[in-house]
Amino acid sequence: MNAPSSTARGRFISLEGGEGAGKSTLLAGLRDWIGQQGVTLVQTREPGGTELGEAVRAIVLDPRHHGLAAETELLLMFASRAQLVRERIEPALAAGQWVLCDRFADASYAYQGGGRGQPVQRIAALEQWACAGVTPDMTLLLDLPVATGRARATGRSAPDRIEGEADGFFERVRAAYRERAAAEPSRFRVIDATQSPAKVLADAIDAVAELTRGINA
Amino acid sequence: MNAPSSTARGRFISLEGGEGAGKSTLLAGLRDWIGQQGVTLVQTREPGGTELGEAVRAIVLDPRHHGLAAETELLLMFASRAQLVRERIEPALAAGQWVLCDRFADASYAYQGGGRGQPVQRIAALEQWACAGVTPDMTLLLDLPVATGRARATGRSAPDRIEGEADGFFERVRAAYRERAAAEPSRFRVIDATQSPAKVLADAIDAVAELTRGINA
Ligand SMILES: Nc1ncnc2c1ncn2[C@@H]1O[C@H](COP(=O)(O)OP(=O)(O)OP(=O)(O)O)[C@@H](O)[C@H]1O
Ligand SMILES: Nc1ncnc2c1ncn2[C@@H]1O[C@H](COP(=O)(O)OP(=O)(O)OP(=O)(O)O)[C@@H](O)[C@H]1O
Ligand SMILES: [Mg+2]
Ligand SMILES: [Mg+2]
Repeated sequence: MNAPSSTARGRFISLEGGEGAGKSTLLAGLRDWIGQQGVTLVQTREPGGTELGEAVRAIVLDPRHHGLAAETELLLMFASRAQLVRERIEPALAAGQWVLCDRFADASYAYQGGGRGQPVQRIAALEQWACAGVTPDMTLLLDLPVATGRARATGRSAPDRIEGEADGFFERVRAAYRERAAAEPSRFRVIDATQSPAKVLADAIDAVAELTRGINA
Repeated sequence: MNAPSSTARGRFISLEGGEGAGKSTLLAGLRDWIGQQGVTLVQTREPGGTELGEAVRAIVLDPRHHGLAAETELLLMFASRAQLVRERIEPALAAGQWVLCDRFADASYAYQGGGRGQPVQRIAALEQWACAGVTPDMTLLLDLPVATGRARATGRSAPDRIEGEADGFFERVRAAYRERAAAEPSRFRVIDATQSPAKVLADAIDAVAELTRGINA
């Protein structure tokens, strides 16, 4: 009854990278390109993306919560993620829509793991049940030196609770991201984020085009 | 250098029970009695008890979040708890103070476990690292039929998101509480909460008096 094109599961793409890497900038361009491929696209972000998630985001990024324990932060990130997966990502994928998400579970390995030292096994255990098996089909990691990203992000607005961390924190975040990319080369595409926005977008389109094969055939 | 009385670790007492069981009423009386025993008492509650915890409480109990997934709720409860343990409970106990808490981890076994069906092993794994080994020395379970408790609580104010659940939910909560009490008789004291407030307080004082032995000797 159903034509394959209407029942095929959608694709899930996550964008990752440190502060000022250019995720939000890339997302705008990539969204337009994906939309032109004839698929319905859902755009979202983490933490956030649902009413609950945005409430959690407000708490987590509020500089007043400077005494937030690393365990608390990790649990809040996964609370937002568990809701996002169930309320938006999984239903969209099941309906054949594509999902483009500004950060996802890899960000917890990088920030709460690399940055704050929470054990990888703990994060993996949380991911296993909180995400109910939902993993990105492709993750674009925008990689660039910490100083370059911070210089770009500076002056946008007052730093939030996480942006206010020291450089050492962001070096550990970057190292953890690169380590994950190296461990899962079939899912990750590392993009040199020091390039111009146009070149970053071109690289991202090259990568995502692999996922569209067959759709327009 | 330090006299034993100033270095002895404080005691941690949690109050548990369904809606309208009389926890808040008992807490007020018990707090006064404990204060008369010559110990410094910290009173707190869950979810809440810290700035972060109260923000989480507002989210969790807000009836607008009716689509909250069971996994999300469980993670939020433990986020509040992880912060409460580190920010208030553990420092107080280490300083020799006593802590009286209106609900603690047993409530997750009862509500998110019994009520919502989250697996006990999952809750236990979260408790192990989120609570960092902090367990109540004594837990007073105020037990009463669901209908009695609901009748007491009715009309206080508009029901919050959890109070709005059906009777079956609260029957499962009660059963889970009783099961935990039966499994850990050395920590739990089950109090018949259909009794008068004065008799409930008297039973609670009898139980807690066991913990004060030696303090006034
Ligand atoms: N390839 C690029 N080259 C130079 N500047 C860029 C590039 N991409 C983005 N920028 C600029 O850098 C700043 C940060 O970009 P953007 O907000 O996209 O980063 P982000 O990764 O989303 O940051 P955050 O982690 O804070 O959300 C913006 O001012 C943006 O215009
Ligand atoms: N032993 C008792 N007998 C009769 N009524 C009681 C008793 N204890 C408390 N009440 C009344 O029942 C109502 C609920 O009591 P209380 O607020 O102490 O319960 P609670 O367990 O804290 O409820 P909640 O779970 O909603 O916080 C109040 O109106 C209180 O005055
Ligand atoms: Mg951004
Ligand atoms: Mg109460």
